[in-house]
Amino acid sequence: MIKAYAAMSAGAPLETFEYDPGPIAANDVEIEVESCGICHSDLSMLDNDWGITAYPFVPGHEVVGKIVAIGANVTSTAIGQRVGLGWHSAYCNTCNSCGSGDQNLCSSAQMTIAGRHGGFADKVRAQESAVVNIPSGINPDSAGPLFCGGITVFNPLVQFDIKPTSKVAVIGIGGLGHMALQFLNAWGCEVTAFTTSESKKSESLELGAHHVLNSANEEELLAAGGKFDLILSTVNAKLDWNGYLATLAPRGRLHFVGATLEPLDINVFSLLSGQRSVSGSPVGSPNTIKTMLEFSALHKIEPVVEYFSFDQINEAFDRLREGKAHYRIVLKK
Amino acid sequence: MIKAYAAMSAGAPLETFEYDPGPIAANDVEIEVESCGICHSDLSMLDNDWGITAYPFVPGHEVVGKIVAIGANVTSTAIGQRVGLGWHSAYCNTCNSCGSGDQNLCSSAQMTIAGRHGGFADKVRAQESAVVNIPSGINPDSAGPLFCGGITVFNPLVQFDIKPTSKVAVIGIGGLGHMALQFLNAWGCEVTAFTTSESKKSESLELGAHHVLNSANEEELLAAGGKFDLILSTVNAKLDWNGYLATLAPRGRLHFVGATLEPLDINVFSLLSGQRSVSGSPVGSPNTIKTMLEFSALHKIEPVVEYFSFDQINEAFDRLREGKAHYRIVLKK
Repeated sequence: MIKAYAAMSAGAPLETFEYDPGPIAANDVEIEVESCGICHSDLSMLDNDWGITAYPFVPGHEVVGKIVAIGANVTSTAIGQRVGLGWHSAYCNTCNSCGSGDQNLCSSAQMTIAGRHGGFADKVRAQESAVVNIPSGINPDSAGPLFCGGITVFNPLVQFDIKPTSKVAVIGIGGLGHMALQFLNAWGCEVTAFTTSESKKSESLELGAHHVLNSANEEELLAAGGKFDLILSTVNAKLDWNGYLATLAPRGRLHFVGATLEPLDINVFSLLSGQRSVSGSPVGSPNTIKTMLEFSALHKIEPVVEYFSFDQINEAFDRLREGKAHYRIVLKK
Repeated sequence: MIKAYAAMSAGAPLETFEYDPGPIAANDVEIEVESCGICHSDLSMLDNDWGITAYPFVPGHEVVGKIVAIGANVTSTAIGQRVGLGWHSAYCNTCNSCGSGDQNLCSSAQMTIAGRHGGFADKVRAQESAVVNIPSGINPDSAGPLFCGGITVFNPLVQFDIKPTSKVAVIGIGGLGHMALQFLNAWGCEVTAFTTSESKKSESLELGAHHVLNSANEEELLAAGGKFDLILSTVNAKLDWNGYLATLAPRGRLHFVGATLEPLDINVFSLLSGQRSVSGSPVGSPNTIKTMLEFSALHKIEPVVEYFSFDQINEAFDRLREGKAHYRIVLKK
């Protein structure tokens, strides 16, 4: 039996819950959970914001732990290996996306917390291909958030071949944005943080921003006209997207990793005149996660986390719900 | 004096109009106009749809003719050379975009029909850097539309590194779309024409489409889910953009070359889930125009045009206004 924390209905507090995972599948591994980050999407799923949550619901998809069992066909990892597990727990491994190394775009990919039970548990299972070894040089305690929040902001730098000479801005300095600033600084870019929060100004500079722009200040926004090669939006809110488009350089890209629910009201002329793009992406492939971990180890990049014990899980969710997490929360044994 | 056709106010018929171009500037050439295409943007400017038209207004920015005078510094072309002139007549030649070969994105580029007098005239002037020699193998009579409509749909194939193995669809089989189908077919792509017009079905296949999809048919649109690497939208109308986004493959791009005035109501989840992009671009650089002309000569690509004489200019504009042009109109001496 696996001992987990589950919500029995939308928005309900988490309570202890046991389930029988059955015999281990041939391509699966079983991880003994050492720590697990809480991501904003755990909260969205807990509340059934996206209408796809099944209850009992076990959240948790930023898992770090050691492999304690493997299926008959598993060859790439072994019992005792410390690994991480993120948003996806399995891929089809046969579609065009999987065949091209874009497992994160596999339309049959299984989500760790939808159709499966997640990582707020003593153990969790996943397909061998979906777990990634934690290299030395990575602090395992704080590594969980790299496997969802981290890879979500790291992946676009790889996908769009961002150059160290690029000028990049980040909208929203929170759970995702604070990691984006660190990655971009180490990437060599000139980094700007967009924030309306005075208190986040100095923290943004410490995290790697070279400039901080108050996006509520129309003059500052106008002065940045035509500047950025890439803007990463990590927020869920509706903002003045055409105002941000005007701050893009020719060939610039406004890229969404935050799941804004309201449609984007994009002015076509803003795109046409400067050959600009608007795009989005989900998490990254296992291989890109591996690249991110190596890059993070080299550059000493680490999520800024607050620790809670697993039995404080409801306090931890409350803190996230109140927007007080600074910047990520990790539950730790 | 240059003898031209000008409108004296918004939407007015064109009438004969003379102006003194003054002494020729050091970096300019003077072209004796042999033919000039009418583009839909001539009509938009004539009617002052974009609020930037100055009157008297001389339209015409798909010019083919021979150089009859050159300024003191001109070295790359000579009197007697047949050249083409498109949307831009001059660049700053000093900004980052110009320095990177993206003269078409130069924010100080001068438009042939805004702030200047255009090509519906016996002569027209332009900066040496903005005219492109017409190579042998190109029919000069029908070449005018390549310099605006043609380059507008050719340019994205170069910019986004479209592969011959890509699956590409074109929305709107008209003045722009009929050239896009020809380019894409010669590019090696699997080409789909989106059209709601039954009459354009067989023409689309003749122009190079391998498939024709009726975009008004929801079943056909659903069946194309996840198929296209690139969709080129050449239309000005508001369509169900999220429906088209669903027909994009992972990493697919919905690219606008048509100046839709209504904002795009893009669903962020459509972008996120498949790492999809929405983008736009204007015409191309002189170098990309040169590449297009060579490609067109090799593959015998030619705009489908109707000819009018210059003194039929108002009939020609009426025909375009009524949407009857098939597919482009060229005024010819």
